[in-house]
Formats: sequence, structure tokens, C-alpha cells
Amino acid sequence: MTVRVGVIGAGMIGQDHIRRITQVLSGGTVVAVTDVDAARAQSVADGWPGAAVYPAGRELVASGDVDAVLVTSWGPTHEDHVLAAIEAGLPVFCEKPLATTEDACLRIMDAEMAGGRRLVQVGFMRRYDAGYRALKAALDEATIGTPLLMHCAHRNRSAPPYGFTTEGMIADSAVHEIDLVQWLFGEPVAATSILKPRRSSRAAEGLHDPLIVLLEMASGVLVDVEVFVNAGYGYDIRGEIVGESGTVAHAEAAGEVTVKAGGARRGRVPGDWRDRFAAAFDAELQDWLNAVAAGTSTGPGSWDGYAAAAVTGSCLEALRSGQRTPVTLAERPEFYAKAL
Amino acid sequence: MTVRVGVIGAGMIGQDHIRRITQVLSGGTVVAVTDVDAARAQSVADGWPGAAVYPAGRELVASGDVDAVLVTSWGPTHEDHVLAAIEAGLPVFCEKPLATTEDACLRIMDAEMAGGRRLVQVGFMRRYDAGYRALKAALDEATIGTPLLMHCAHRNRSAPPYGFTTEGMIADSAVHEIDLVQWLFGEPVAATSILKPRRSSRAAEGLHDPLIVLLEMASGVLVDVEVFVNAGYGYDIRGEIVGESGTVAHAEAAGEVTVKAGGARRGRVPGDWRDRFAAAFDAELQDWLNAVAAGTSTGPGSWDGYAAAAVTGSCLEALRSGQRTPVTLAERPEFYAKAL
Amino acid sequence: MTVRVGVIGAGMIGQDHIRRITQVLSGGTVVAVTDVDAARAQSVADGWPGAAVYPAGRELVASGDVDAVLVTSWGPTHEDHVLAAIEAGLPVFCEKPLATTEDACLRIMDAEMAGGRRLVQVGFMRRYDAGYRALKAALDEATIGTPLLMHCAHRNRSAPPYGFTTEGMIADSAVHEIDLVQWLFGEPVAATSILKPRRSSRAAEGLHDPLIVLLEMASGVLVDVEVFVNAGYGYDIRGEIVGESGTVAHAEAAGEVTVKAGGARRGRVPGDWRDRFAAAFDAELQDWLNAVAAGTSTGPGSWDGYAAAAVTGSCLEALRSGQRTPVTLAERPEFYAKAL
Amino acid sequence: MTVRVGVIGAGMIGQDHIRRITQVLSGGTVVAVTDVDAARAQSVADGWPGAAVYPAGRELVASGDVDAVLVTSWGPTHEDHVLAAIEAGLPVFCEKPLATTEDACLRIMDAEMAGGRRLVQVGFMRRYDAGYRALKAALDEATIGTPLLMHCAHRNRSAPPYGFTTEGMIADSAVHEIDLVQWLFGEPVAATSILKPRRSSRAAEGLHDPLIVLLEMASGVLVDVEVFVNAGYGYDIRGEIVGESGTVAHAEAAGEVTVKAGGARRGRVPGDWRDRFAAAFDAELQDWLNAVAAGTSTGPGSWDGYAAAAVTGSCLEALRSGQRTPVTLAERPEFYAKAL
Repeated sequence: MTVRVGVIGAGMIGQDHIRRITQVLSGGTVVAVTDVDAARAQSVADGWPGAAVYPAGRELVASGDVDAVLVTSWGPTHEDHVLAAIEAGLPVFCEKPLATTEDACLRIMDAEMAGGRRLVQVGFMRRYDAGYRALKAALDEATIGTPLLMHCAHRNRSAPPYGFTTEGMIADSAVHEIDLVQWLFGEPVAATSILKPRRSSRAAEGLHDPLIVLLEMASGVLVDVEVFVNAGYGYDIRGEIVGESGTVAHAEAAGEVTVKAGGARRGRVPGDWRDRFAAAFDAELQDWLNAVAAGTSTGPGSWDGYAAAAVTGSCLEALRSGQRTPVTLAERPEFYAKAL
Repeated sequence: MTVRVGVIGAGMIGQDHIRRITQVLSGGTVVAVTDVDAARAQSVADGWPGAAVYPAGRELVASGDVDAVLVTSWGPTHEDHVLAAIEAGLPVFCEKPLATTEDACLRIMDAEMAGGRRLVQVGFMRRYDAGYRALKAALDEATIGTPLLMHCAHRNRSAPPYGFTTEGMIADSAVHEIDLVQWLFGEPVAATSILKPRRSSRAAEGLHDPLIVLLEMASGVLVDVEVFVNAGYGYDIRGEIVGESGTVAHAEAAGEVTVKAGGARRGRVPGDWRDRFAAAFDAELQDWLNAVAAGTSTGPGSWDGYAAAAVTGSCLEALRSGQRTPVTLAERPEFYAKAL
Repeated sequence: MTVRVGVIGAGMIGQDHIRRITQVLSGGTVVAVTDVDAARAQSVADGWPGAAVYPAGRELVASGDVDAVLVTSWGPTHEDHVLAAIEAGLPVFCEKPLATTEDACLRIMDAEMAGGRRLVQVGFMRRYDAGYRALKAALDEATIGTPLLMHCAHRNRSAPPYGFTTEGMIADSAVHEIDLVQWLFGEPVAATSILKPRRSSRAAEGLHDPLIVLLEMASGVLVDVEVFVNAGYGYDIRGEIVGESGTVAHAEAAGEVTVKAGGARRGRVPGDWRDRFAAAFDAELQDWLNAVAAGTSTGPGSWDGYAAAAVTGSCLEALRSGQRTPVTLAERPEFYAKAL
Repeated sequence: MTVRVGVIGAGMIGQDHIRRITQVLSGGTVVAVTDVDAARAQSVADGWPGAAVYPAGRELVASGDVDAVLVTSWGPTHEDHVLAAIEAGLPVFCEKPLATTEDACLRIMDAEMAGGRRLVQVGFMRRYDAGYRALKAALDEATIGTPLLMHCAHRNRSAPPYGFTTEGMIADSAVHEIDLVQWLFGEPVAATSILKPRRSSRAAEGLHDPLIVLLEMASGVLVDVEVFVNAGYGYDIRGEIVGESGTVAHAEAAGEVTVKAGGARRGRVPGDWRDRFAAAFDAELQDWLNAVAAGTSTGPGSWDGYAAAAVTGSCLEALRSGQRTPVTLAERPEFYAKAL
């Protein structure tokens, strides 16, 4: 079976997923595109023979021509598109965030539960990275004993040129670690705090870069995440888990080859997230296509999108107040009980 | 366009390529299978809906139902299958070796030239490995100055359980490095020698493991290749090029994560060639499918298959005689002039 | 000139320094020993021909036979011995802490200033470690731009078998980092906080292991120090400074050789502080002997001992209160103005 | 006991050893100096109070004022000075080579045996390097099984500015590896060959740089040594031993710290042999002083100097002839039987 995918949102990430489905992955084809900018939708569709253009997400979902929906539109529109797909009984892959408020996430969960079938996957692609999978395997195999601590760093070469905010450092950047630690440790974040180190003079006005985000897991495992979006030297993602009898960490990324020249031994640091996580993006979407074809659901779902939103909300409150802030989480429905 | 592929030879590597085309890559479909063992062909075809079984390669090629041919049969049959594809004007991907004698390779080149179009790609998949590509980029960008030397190691955990010979260590294992150095340095190997270190007691009777294969490039660049097929600890592929002003080497493969436990800091060594070169195999075959769809040819071709056969022949003679042995190479036809 | 050293305190560290002066370093000789346990003093002196035994520190200092004093006795006695040496006009090397209270440190400073000459060196030996020196050189050469953050880890294989307290994790372990960051960044610590991650079940009752110590430098540079005294796997000291344009970190210590065996690539993690810092201890004491012979003073002095005590006090208060705690520091006298 | 050392040869290496004994090590003092250039001897002695100047080595040895002799003069004079020391019954440390001919080495052995006591240590300082000691420990502990192969590289940033010859690449550079492999594997080199890779255009006229030196151990272990004295990028010493079940190699030297900046992760390569082997030189001479004081002998001795000379001679013949050349070695006298 070739999965016929409809894409809602034809911006950079949408186009990248279309390319991926069309040129890289197996078992999918893009048959429908829509975008708030109709001209952009048309232009993108012109590049991929076989993709019809629809005036809006609702029409695309209702067309009867798509087997599954990919939502890559602007965050505040996610709720509507995901709900539309759920109502139509179509599997839907939604780029993070699932929705921009906790309430919206809860409404999506309610709709999905009402339908009685898991339909939603959220784009937390790092769960498909071989490095994070190996961290999780080490935890699951007790290689380092009971986990106590985790140190993370999330460094971008430079922040987007304008409009990027301190809040965005949490909601757009740290949200990856927020999801990952709940997946790695198999438990929710219970409280958060934000620390403000000396501010980089390279950050745009009003941006407090870098930050330290502290995440306290329910068991007491303490996670510190350095978020530094103007790190200057490259894209550097680090994680080290400290357990009772040892540690496990991402191997240092230094490229494919090592050069010795001019008194130095050197390797390459990734330039950006595409460079670092290309294989994870491919694996994520291939997994989704396979699951759709098989009529199952395997990746991070609505509950994970909701939990990430709740912790993100706690962090934003901690940023505002300067105080340690508990996370308030709804009870996890039985429907979402199976750990993914 | 979806490329309809016919597969000649349904053994382990053939099945792996069918899986790759069907489940991993984009733009291809397997429509025909044949094997010297008809039952095996049927069994494999049963696993992949849509693949018809043919009694032999000639029938498969002549069927009119395939756009391109993949030859993964026993080495001595390669010549016949490749010639059949050329005669039918079909692009053909042939696993190494292109053919088992230099004369057979020359006959393939003659047939291809007679047809006036490059149709053959040989399965030297390491050219698609990101590590070797980075080595070549470093050479091409003169990062290390004029190259003078290269040190290689080609280590398998253990040799195939029976029937693997000292000659096989050259023809099946070192042949990868034989092709690579001609591609990396853009020049032929001029002479070869074989050195015999102390023999491992773990090698099967009659197998002289490890060996050192010395390859002298036309420019004088000297390459030493340690071939050790019972290295015991894992699959370890190494290459370091020494230039006038620096060196470039594969980064040490130690897995995705680093564990500290019990007084040690450790990473994982790949277990086998699938583990080490999975991405290269995928890239190789995707590149071939793309080229077939585009009506072009981009990978290592008949000339490269012939040149590898000629150097392999020299090495086998050096092994027999214990002497340094020049490589005798036909003149390179204009048809194959463009470096690939 | 051979410096005649008198050693006050003949325990483990005192004996180690005697061995160092006698068998490893140049330009010093141990001529006098005393210890609160007279029998131990005699036993140690018997092992090193030429060392006379004195009943107490005051007698040793007053003997007229020593050129310099080495204080390696129990912490609470440091003040008395250091003051005695100062009064006698003798250079004195005092193992950390300089004294166990801030007031005692201030009294030592007063006495030293009254004498008009820098006589005191405190045993912050990590300043002599090649790794920390290279970190400081990178800062001083602006290799990474303005510093913003520092991540440290201070991990011991296991805590001393009994009597080690959570307070000791700060006063005995983190005190090294407390001194180092003031030396590295050339500025005082302004405030401290303590975070409590999940407690290791391997820690003795009442010991909250591990801890995170947060040190806020006057400029805003934020330092986090993981102190983990039952890390289990080895002795691991880490430091990474994050600047506006790059980072600099201790190279990962993995021993002299790399072994590949059994599917893994591994190196050795240091076993204890002797293993990791042997060269720094040697360099520290050689530097002191040279300075004594030259009539100068070059290492960390009374002010550094006092500043470390003040920050340690703040950390202990933060541990008690659970609150961020400012550091109260006396004004730095002109006498101690020269950065060391 | 303080060992009174007389130094014959006050050039660069002699001055460096004087500094080491006087300022770094314990238990020795330089009391006598001589040099073929009397003015230089005087100038050096002026810098180290207490060192008397002698007109020649014989006078220094006969003075009765020295307990041990350090020979750091021009190679061709070593034999005379070492024989003089032996005749006087004085321990003597001789920088490599022990003597410039095999016959001279045999004469030294005869004289030493006639005296009935081991008096000679040869300056093969790499045996004192922690890295080589760890390689040897791994062999002795069978970490990698029976050894089969060893790959070495010996790279200098640049050759001495004039007068350095291709023969010198063997006699002055590769001689270190020649000694080491006999020590590591506990067996003699049985035959040698020289391979000539492409010549670096940066080498002085007449210098064939780099070379590959092949050393066949008696057991069949094959060692390849890349000698490259104009490697350009730094001083890089490598060694990897391949055994039946694993490998052990020097950890890659990349300095004390790792810097990430400008898209790269980099460490420092040592600049020269002082940078790389400072601790080994210190350990070597301290060990000698300790042995002299104790009336024993522990380091590489006359037999090792002779064996290195014999293998060097074989290599030079292989260089001349272009042929594999067996090593002819005298029978090892019982007197030198104890492995060191």
C-alpha cells in the first residue's frame, strides 16, 4: 500500500517533508497540498507532479483522496487541523507543538478518545535519533544503575534573525528536551526553574541568551538544560545521564573525518539541526508511514504533546516569576496508558 | 517515474537489496526475480507482492517488464547477465566483482561501448560512505597537501565459517580498498606486494590471516592495507591519508554513546559491515535508481570494475610469487574518460 | 640552596609530601617532623634519615633549623601553625583549608600584613594542573570570547568509609572548584545555591549525594558544579567553559592507551585524585620550594584561602536554608592586590 | 646519598640533562663538565654553581670526584667515554647510540663483562613513557591475545635545517622504534626492509622523506614504521599493536583541553619531542639516579644498545640494496640474560 498524504502548510518544514516522502522514503506519496498562502501552495504543488491544491485544510481532509494528514502549518492553527483529521478518522502527523495551549491539547485528546482509536503523532523527531535511542537502551538495560541526574546542552549557531524571544528558547528549543526526558525516564516532570547566566552580547535586544532550564522529574532525577541559541560555533546537542554506578552520554559529534594540520587535531561540529538530525527526521516519517499503512500508531502521541505543553507552561511561568514552579498535569487516561 | 527492477540472484545480498528498494528507498519497485535455485526465487517473490518469477536471467531481461537489472548472483555468472542487460539496452547494477576475469571485464566494456551508452554500475558501495566522501573532499580541497601515503585496516570479526581462502582476503575483502584508492587518488595502482605477518591461530587451516597488501599508486603514493578477517573484536574499517602538510583519517567509530562504568570509558565498535555501511548501501542504490530514472549514469562503472580486477590479479600473483608485481592495465578508452 | 623543610602533621598527606620532597623534587630536604601523635612522628622520621622529631609545631618553628614550614595537620589546627610560622618570619605552605573559619583566615591575613611580606601558600593544587592552566590560557587568550557559563563535575569513586557529611561535599570537595573559578575568571563568587537531585542509594545514611552547587560570579557567569562522591566508576573531574563564541573543556581523560576488544573501544578512567593530579601536586610543591629559595611567593595565598572560606560558608548556609545566599566578602587589601 | 654526576658533552641534550638533575629531579648533583669545545664547557659550568670544568672525558672520569658519568657528546666519541667509565668502575648513562658500530658495542659489552658488573644504561627514554609502558602492560596481561602486527608512525614537524640524511631517518629516528619493539615483544628483530613512498617536496634535496621501515620479529610479528621527519603539522608518535583478539594503541594525543569554535572541535598536537616526552626523560634519569644510588642497574643496557645497532645496520643495508635484509646478531651472553 502506498499511503496518500495530504500536507497542510507548505512552508519550509512542509516542503522538506514533501521532499522526504517523495524522494527519500518508501511507501508514501503526496497527493494534496494546502497553505494559508494559496500561491505558495500552488508553487509547491507544481514542483511535485500529482499533488492537488486545496483551498484550506478542511477541504483537503474532506476530499476523500488522502489516507493521512501531515500538519506543518503555523502553530496556532494546529488544533483545528488535527481535530478535522480526527473527525474524518484520518491518521495525522502534527509538527510540534501539538497545540499552543494545554486546553487545546486536552480537546484533541478528548476528540481522539471519543473516536476510540489512536490517530495522532507529534513531531518529536529526536526520539528517532540513534543517539537518544542508545541513551534510552542504556537506561533500560541498567548499564549505569538508577538514574540521578542529567546534563543537557542545546546550542544553535545563531538565533533566527528576528522575532525570536526568550520564551521561544523554551517553547521552541527546550521543548525537545522537555519531551525527551519524560520519554527517557518514563515519568513526568514535576517542577521547573529557570536560571539566567550572564547574557551574551551577541543576543538580540530583549533575548536572554543563554538560559539554564531545570527540570525535576517525579522521582527526583534532576535535569539541567543549557539552552544557548547564539552559541556561535555550531549546532551542538549534548546529553549525559548520571546513574548510581556510571554515566552514559552522546558521543561527541566531530564529523566523519579527523584532520591533523597546523598543530591541531580537529573534527567538524554540525552546522544546524538538518545536519545533526537528518536521519532522525527520515526515520520518524518512515515509521509514521509504516504505521499508517499497518493501521497502527507507534510514535509520540497526543498525551506526549499535552505533557510537553504543560511543562512548557510551567517553565514560562518560572521564567516570569523567577520561582521554582510545579507542573500541574491532568490525570493520564487509560487510553494513553501504554508507554510509547 | 517508478523504476521497475528485475533482480537476478535471490541470495542474501539480493534479498537485502529487494528489501531496500521496497521498504527503504524511494522511486523503485521490484517486479521480477530469478535465481539458479527456482524454489528460492519463488520463496523470495512470495514475500514481495508484485514480483514475478523468471526461470533465468535471459528471460527476465527479455521480458520487457523491467526498466533496470540488478545482478546479485554468483560471481562467475556476472558476465553473462551484465552482457544480456547491455544487449537489451537496460541499465544494470552489478554487485562486485563485475566479472571474475580481466578479459570478461574487457568484453563487457566492449559491449557497452558498442551500445554507445553507459549502462553499468558496479557495487563499490564504500564510495557512497560519508566517511570516504569526506576523505576525498579533504584531498580535493588540499586540506593536507599532496598525498604521500595511506594506511588502511580492514578487519572483520571473523571469517565466513568455511571455504574462505587467503585469495578471498584479496578478491573479496581488499578489493574494496583497491577500488577506493583509485577513486580517492584519481590514478591507477601501478604495482602490488603482499606481506605475511605472524598468522593468527584463530584462522582456519590454510588461511594466512592477517595479510598486508601494499598498493603503489602511479604517482608513488604508497598504500598499506591490513586485511584481518578474524580480528575478533568487531568490524573495524580504518583509513588515514598522510599528505605533505597534514593527515586526514576516518573518525574512530565508537558508536552513538559513551559509557563510563567500572573504571573505563567505552564505546561500541561496529559488529559487521551492515552495521558500519548501512547508510552507504542505501545511498548507493538510491543514487542508482535516481540515475536510471533520469537516464544518466553516475556511479562506478565498467572501467572501475575492470581496473579493480586487474589490480586484484596483480595482488594474487604477488601472493603466489612473494614478489612485487606490476599491474598491467589496458589503455583507458575515451568512452570511460570522465572520472566518476 | 637546599630548602630545609619542617613538616607539621605526619598523616597521609604529610607523608606524601615528605616522599615528594625527598624522592621526586629538586631543592628541598625534610629536616623536621612533628605530629599530634608523637609515635607516628617518630615512625615517619625513622623512614627519612635526617629528619628530627619535635614535640609540637611551635617548637619545630622556633628551632631555627627549618627554612620553611609545611602544615598538613588537622584543619582546626591550621590557624595556630600558620600564625606561628608567620611570627617566625618563615614561609609556610598550608594544605587546604587555610583555616576553618573566615575570622581565622582574616587573622592570618592581618598577621601576614603586619609582617609586611607574603609568606603563606595554600594547597589549591589544581591551579598547577596542566588542564586547568590550559583552560585559563584559553580564557586569557579570548579563544572562546567572553565567558558566560561553566559546567563542572567532581566525581569520586566512593566517599571515605565513615564520617563524610553532606557539608564535607562542599567544604572538602567543591572547595576546589570554589577556588578555581575565582582564579579562572579573576573575580569573586557573589552568591551560591545548592540543588538536591535524587539521592544515590549507595550514599551513607544522612549523606545527600550527589549535589549541584551553583556559583554566581560577580560578572554574572554562572557555574554549576556536580559533586558526586559515590560515582562508582572512577575519579572524574570535568570542566567546560562556554563563551560567546565557543567552548573550552578538559579533554576527556581515558588513560594512556585505547583498547579494542570484545565489541568495545575503551580507555581507563582515573581511579583517584593521586592518579589524576600527581603531576599537579609535584608542580605545586616544586614551585613552592623554588619560590622559598628565591625569597618570593607565587602561588595561591592567604586572600585566596579566605575567599574560598567565605564562599564555602555561603554554600553551607544555602544548603541549610535551601535558599540562594549572597557571599559577604571583606574588602581586598592592597597588600593582596596582585592577582596570582 | 646525592649522586655526583660528571657530564661529558655540554651541547643541547647535555645542558638539558644538567638542568633536569639540578632543577627537576631528586638525588643528583652535577659536579663536573667537559666538552670538546672548552669555552662551551666553561660557559655551561658557569651557569651551574658547583660544576668544575675538565679538559676531557678521561680526566673527568679519573678525577675521583664523580660517582657516575653522563655521556652526551658526539656519537662517534661514545665508545671511548663509555669504556673509560667502565674501566674506572663508574656507572655510565650514554645517550643513544651506545656506539656507532656494532663492533664498538661488542667491545663495550666485553669490557663491562670483564668488570663483572652492569654499569651501562643507554638513553632509550621512550621505555619510560607512560604510553609505551601501558602498551607493554597490555601485552604482558594478554589483553589483546598473541600479538601479530604493529603499526607505528614517527612524525616530526620538520627535519633539522641542514645535514639530515635518509640514513639519519633510520639511525636517529627509527632507532627508537627499533629498540622499543625488541623490548615490547621480548624478542629480536630478525629481518628488515625499507619502502619508499612518494617523496615530500618539502624534504631537503637528497632526503627521501617519508620512509616505511619494516621490522620482522623473530616470532613473525610484523612491524611497520612510518618515519616522516617533515610531517609539517606537529610531532606525532603512534603505535597500535594488533593481537589475535583485539588491539591496543596509544591514545590520540590532542592536548589538555578541547576547544569548540568556528565549526570545529579541536585539540593540540604536540610540537616536538620535548613536548611529548618530557615526563619520560624525567622518569628515565630519575630512575638512573636511583639505581646508581642503590648500586643497581635497571634500564636498557649495553646489550640493548648493541641490538639496536645491529638492526639499524640491517635497515641501512636494506635502504642501500632495496632488499629485505636479515639481521645478524651475536649470541646473547648469560651476563645480559635478564630481560630489562
